[in-house]
Amino acid sequence: MPDCAGFPARPVSPDDLDLICRHREAMFLEAGGIAADLSVMGAHFRPWLRERLADGRYYGFVLLDAGIPIAGIGLMTLDWPPHPNHPEQDRRGYVLNVYVEPGHRRRGLASALMELADAEFARRGVGFAVLHATDAGRPVYAGLGWQATAEMAKRIG
Amino acid sequence: MPDCAGFPARPVSPDDLDLICRHREAMFLEAGGIAADLSVMGAHFRPWLRERLADGRYYGFVLLDAGIPIAGIGLMTLDWPPHPNHPEQDRRGYVLNVYVEPGHRRRGLASALMELADAEFARRGVGFAVLHATDAGRPVYAGLGWQATAEMAKRIG
Repeated sequence: MPDCAGFPARPVSPDDLDLICRHREAMFLEAGGIAADLSVMGAHFRPWLRERLADGRYYGFVLLDAGIPIAGIGLMTLDWPPHPNHPEQDRRGYVLNVYVEPGHRRRGLASALMELADAEFARRGVGFAVLHATDAGRPVYAGLGWQATAEMAKRIG
Repeated sequence: MPDCAGFPARPVSPDDLDLICRHREAMFLEAGGIAADLSVMGAHFRPWLRERLADGRYYGFVLLDAGIPIAGIGLMTLDWPPHPNHPEQDRRGYVLNVYVEPGHRRRGLASALMELADAEFARRGVGFAVLHATDAGRPVYAGLGWQATAEMAKRIG
């Protein structure tokens, strides 16, 4: 297993379903989300994730401290039209559900996870990746070379 | 056919392959892209688009003036994890390749295309959509209720 800021990292597996769901809800709750809304999201995210952990469309890593998960990161490869940022590739990487347990913060674990993500994307030949940052995550990502995009969004109807 | 700022609109079809490829390259060129790079992108975008026009994964509209295409918009439905902005849905809409021929600008055609997009997403039950704006497009989208997101991006390797 690769070592990550002193902690061993292992790939996510279908057995991490509960862990990743918990990380995702906690991440959005800490970013200002409403627990009841996140519970609705979680009920729909769980079967979505189960299917994708099983077939490998959702991949990523978990960091362990004495065998106990203390942080995680999710990765996907999005089907995307060839674009000036990846003119020869019809896909881009996506990073999601970056979460470090509160007792293990401020030790560089998020940065270490992001370096694992870079290496994994590179191993898969993915040359361009995106993510959506929380306010807490943005300076970490900016320090690793991530830059804001011109994405805009709208609720429909 | 729906009427759009006085011009009839029709859905895109596989016969629009050349048109949409031309719109995409022109759009990025006007946004500051380099022609040689866009040509590489275009060579990879064309087969990507052909497949998706054929099976309907790429949809959208073309505006006509006396039967001649004068503007176009592309739409897709992205597989996406249920999220606080769409907690019960595992997908989001995507808008791309919004292009108005230079001789037909400043008549509200881009806004009209965006209203067609809203209606099409609503018809398909898509409750949240994203796009990437050029500097020229941003104020148009902002005026229609689109807001900047926290997306960040990085080249890998």
